[in-house]
Amino acid sequence: MPITLYDLAGADPALRFSPYCWRTKLALAHKGLTVETIPWRFTDKAVLAFSGQGKVPLIVDGERVVFDSWAIAEYLENTYPDQPSLFGGPAGRAAMRFINGWADSTLHSGIARMVVRDIHAVLAAKDQAYFRSSREAALGATLEAVVEGREARLEAWRALLTPVRLALRTQAFLGGEGPSYADHILFGTLQWPRCVSSFALLAPDDPVAAWFSRVGALYGGLGAGARTV
Amino acid sequence: MPITLYDLAGADPALRFSPYCWRTKLALAHKGLTVETIPWRFTDKAVLAFSGQGKVPLIVDGERVVFDSWAIAEYLENTYPDQPSLFGGPAGRAAMRFINGWADSTLHSGIARMVVRDIHAVLAAKDQAYFRSSREAALGATLEAVVEGREARLEAWRALLTPVRLALRTQAFLGGEGPSYADHILFGTLQWPRCVSSFALLAPDDPVAAWFSRVGALYGGLGAGARTV
Repeated sequence: MPITLYDLAGADPALRFSPYCWRTKLALAHKGLTVETIPWRFTDKAVLAFSGQGKVPLIVDGERVVFDSWAIAEYLENTYPDQPSLFGGPAGRAAMRFINGWADSTLHSGIARMVVRDIHAVLAAKDQAYFRSSREAALGATLEAVVEGREARLEAWRALLTPVRLALRTQAFLGGEGPSYADHILFGTLQWPRCVSSFALLAPDDPVAAWFSRVGALYGGLGAGARTV
Repeated sequence: MPITLYDLAGADPALRFSPYCWRTKLALAHKGLTVETIPWRFTDKAVLAFSGQGKVPLIVDGERVVFDSWAIAEYLENTYPDQPSLFGGPAGRAAMRFINGWADSTLHSGIARMVVRDIHAVLAAKDQAYFRSSREAALGATLEAVVEGREARLEAWRALLTPVRLALRTQAFLGGEGPSYADHILFGTLQWPRCVSSFALLAPDDPVAAWFSRVGALYGGLGAGARTV
């Protein structure tokens, strides 16, 4: 029986843009597991009531229900140890836990402040009011005001990727010669703005862009082939 | 025969403060290897001439000469595979390569701008003129001007450690339940200002401070017992 993934979607059900859901999709593909995704919208809280919480990614694997992208990665690694490893062992897992927190705490806020208006534009009508009010409360300004001047902030945001560039000087992937969950983490982070916005965050000549293409080509082009706006 | 390590020292030969040499000392201890350190000063370039370069850490292990803290860690892991692992495998090593670049590119500049005057104060007389002129050229200001107002910059610098705090919410070490080279990387970074300055970078109630104490207590208190100013 395939694993079921509840996957954040826009008005177009094929537009799947959650950074955390992308991490999970790449992790499932890395493990060679078959998945059936269900498009889910922010306001579909009731659909997830069986899990006792209201966020995606959420997977159902037979009797097991697991949510939170990091918890799902650990679940997959523990449950399918004979499939290709996501972490390469406990020390790798612990280091990737750091990288997960680094991506979330360092990169995400700046991305949101550049593309939050574009996210709103792709949402299903039923999600738009919820998204606008919750995000405007969190950001302390209208979505339009938040993204204003994003061109001027791009260079400083790109500088945050310096440690990625340093690692890519000597290795093709954050996982080394091949991908690990560290690649899935950062790919999810960068796939999110790519799916919802025509505002390009990576310069074409950035080594991170070349790496992004390499990861996008993995697993039959899973990431590269995603629907984008 | 013990491994020889050329280790940056101050006027007091027992004051060893290089972040990169600390990484190497912890890596050697992690591997259970016996080491004999030789105090080295910035202007002792001729002493290292046999290696074809002029920087420490540098180790001599029998016939082998290895320099650069990352290269030394890889050398130790490859040469002593039956001793406790630094990386826990290729995926861990690749993730720690990222963490190494993160520490160097994100934390070091801010630390230098807070303690560079204090470093100058502890140096051997023969190093002081070299250090002042090279650092003032690089920083574009006098050492005294660079550190001025450091109290006001401390909070922003501490915020850079957020991803460490996130990781430490669920694990005692960056290596997980026990230390890996990821811990040695960050410990070296933070031991550097601790050894040369009375200006405390970590707040006492910061979880990073508790972690720093845990790592300092490892290997017979190697880090905690270091000479400081």
